Amino acid sequence: MQKCLIAADIADAMANASWIRRMFEAGNELRRTRGADKVFDFSLGNPDVPPPAKARDVLHALADDAVRPCGLGYMPNAGLPEFRANLAEHLRSEQAVPNLTAAQLTVTVGAAGALVTFFRTVLERGDEVLVPSPYFVEYGFYCGHFGGILKPVPMKGPEFALDVKALLAAVTDRTRVILLNSPNNPTGAVYTEADLRALAEAVNALNATRERPIFMLSDEPYRVFAFDGATVPPVLSLSPYAAVLGSFSKSLSLAGERIGYIAVNPALEGWETLAAALTMSNRTLGYVNAPILGQKLANALLDERVDLSVYDARRRAMAEVLSAAGLRFSMPRGAFYFFPEVPGGDDVAFCGRLMEQGIIAVPGRGFGMAGYIRLCSAVDIDIIRHSADGFRAACR
Amino acid sequence: MQKCLIAADIADAMANASWIRRMFEAGNELRRTRGADKVFDFSLGNPDVPPPAKARDVLHALADDAVRPCGLGYMPNAGLPEFRANLAEHLRSEQAVPNLTAAQLTVTVGAAGALVTFFRTVLERGDEVLVPSPYFVEYGFYCGHFGGILKPVPMKGPEFALDVKALLAAVTDRTRVILLNSPNNPTGAVYTEADLRALAEAVNALNATRERPIFMLSDEPYRVFAFDGATVPPVLSLSPYAAVLGSFSKSLSLAGERIGYIAVNPALEGWETLAAALTMSNRTLGYVNAPILGQKLANALLDERVDLSVYDARRRAMAEVLSAAGLRFSMPRGAFYFFPEVPGGDDVAFCGRLMEQGIIAVPGRGFGMAGYIRLCSAVDIDIIRHSADGFRAACR
Repeated sequence: MQKCLIAADIADAMANASWIRRMFEAGNELRRTRGADKVFDFSLGNPDVPPPAKARDVLHALADDAVRPCGLGYMPNAGLPEFRANLAEHLRSEQAVPNLTAAQLTVTVGAAGALVTFFRTVLERGDEVLVPSPYFVEYGFYCGHFGGILKPVPMKGPEFALDVKALLAAVTDRTRVILLNSPNNPTGAVYTEADLRALAEAVNALNATRERPIFMLSDEPYRVFAFDGATVPPVLSLSPYAAVLGSFSKSLSLAGERIGYIAVNPALEGWETLAAALTMSNRTLGYVNAPILGQKLANALLDERVDLSVYDARRRAMAEVLSAAGLRFSMPRGAFYFFPEVPGGDDVAFCGRLMEQGIIAVPGRGFGMAGYIRLCSAVDIDIIRHSADGFRAACR
Repeated sequence: MQKCLIAADIADAMANASWIRRMFEAGNELRRTRGADKVFDFSLGNPDVPPPAKARDVLHALADDAVRPCGLGYMPNAGLPEFRANLAEHLRSEQAVPNLTAAQLTVTVGAAGALVTFFRTVLERGDEVLVPSPYFVEYGFYCGHFGGILKPVPMKGPEFALDVKALLAAVTDRTRVILLNSPNNPTGAVYTEADLRALAEAVNALNATRERPIFMLSDEPYRVFAFDGATVPPVLSLSPYAAVLGSFSKSLSLAGERIGYIAVNPALEGWETLAAALTMSNRTLGYVNAPILGQKLANALLDERVDLSVYDARRRAMAEVLSAAGLRFSMPRGAFYFFPEVPGGDDVAFCGRLMEQGIIAVPGRGFGMAGYIRLCSAVDIDIIRHSADGFRAACR
């Protein structure tokens, strides 16, 4: 008899491999049988646009610096003081919080590390995390480690707008966090300032009588990916109970080096306690500190970003392909995902039909919303263009 | 009224700042008031010996490689395939497991990341983790995140040997992990092969009738720090239920870049499940993957290590200073810590007397054993030598 080697909830999670994972594996199988050039894989969001050219010079300089004593040694758990100071300055204008300083910032192991750190710090077991749906599936794991319960609340209308009323209707005594992600994965939606402001005002009003306030946590790894003149409104300044996190994985194509951050609002009474607790969680969760080379690199590249025109061209090409196939979708104004409705309504069946054409998509149910598929447009524009026939055939 | 912003157990932990932290802050205060040159700080283990010189060339090569598409992008969650393969080869001989392959390895965010990942993967709430005492205090946090309960079991005799009998006597139905750390922090002890083998045999016998086996988890960040001809016996090969983890933080002075690993034994029935679950936890805990620059650096430096003769010279100098002061201690054969008994028995009081001399030490109770102090000898040899008068005065 095989022994019980792993925790029961991990065993459950492994038995229910994510749809992203399943489609990724189906894609690998397809590449083997058909040849890689006949597969159009839109399943994963791995940014392939090179980091800014300046990264090369910065890394050369770091190479000489690394071999002195403590050149790659420990640092304060909250991050390199110089990076935190520069990042605070950067976020002051981005988030419209003019008195934000390094003291409110913790540098983290990517945005994922920031999310896990935040959940560990504020959640008690049984606390609820509200999230507009569809949503990034890993959120469930991130809060589940500490007994948090993810509660999806559908977004509104064909444009996937924030449904403030529905979110507020879902609030209970156990609600601890409202988790926002704009520009959104998987829909590409960018929430409006009016909706965010309405939500923040309602949260502030609710918190007036709550001993355990509701946090408004904004996950913003796609902030710079905004197109068609869209602006991504600041969230941190909207409420003392707002916290914002982000990463450089996409904006600088540094995903493998794992650099993110979380910032709390200096207007929160007791922010010092929250910030110190976040830094402690960042330490005790075993991150200890975000990687030193990545912090130095991001610090030197704070004003840089990858070539966004490449992403925009891909977005337009993908829109043309989907329109030509007759698929209904809301044009994404942010991030690099499309979330079209599927003909017939069965997302898994439609993914099967796409797969027959060599096209890999992820069923919407993998993001909490059946009847749609997610397509990542962060792939070579020729692959997008050459997938047009396949999409048309699958839609027939 | 200030709201409740953080989880209750985090608030408790913050109210009880660790002794290491307190002494660190006392040291900063002392530097301010006396001047940095009159302070002898033995409180922290921050390796200050430079990384191997080859690190410079490796980083220069990485700089050119980084700016290609996906040069710093995502990778498999278990780590870079090439690094895993080379690391497996390295561990095959180190751990005497000739059939170890990359499949049994997960690359982690340092040894701390490996510990948290392992605990998340195998513990149910209420499970017990036995640890020889004194011990590294962070262990309590690492397992506590997931409801694990750390149970210290004193080591044996003045040399802090592994007390196999006492460990076995502490086993209950809820024991899930026996956590070993050799060379040891804070004692510098190196466990003998005979003791480790006796423990492994007992664990194997116990596991024959347990549905939920006890793991023997070996935390080995100090493995290469062995002196006076001491050898650090392999642990992974001693039991199918052994797992080993380590890091390059000390051996390559890369502590800030956070590269570690965990390996399971291919002799374990179901190791595939355990290895896959560890990789999944590494992903869902928000590490996602260990930092890419650090992995490439460690991969290129696998056969290198820092200049150990520097550490050995400091160890001998520290032993001379302590002997001259009349302190009783067991000469450490590994790591870079001393754990002397304090005259009079009150470790906190003795740290106060040392502080009057400008010397910062950490009370043994900070490691679960009052009546001793921990001194880190990973500091400049002149600081060690110049502390001699202070130690003598404090012991008078």
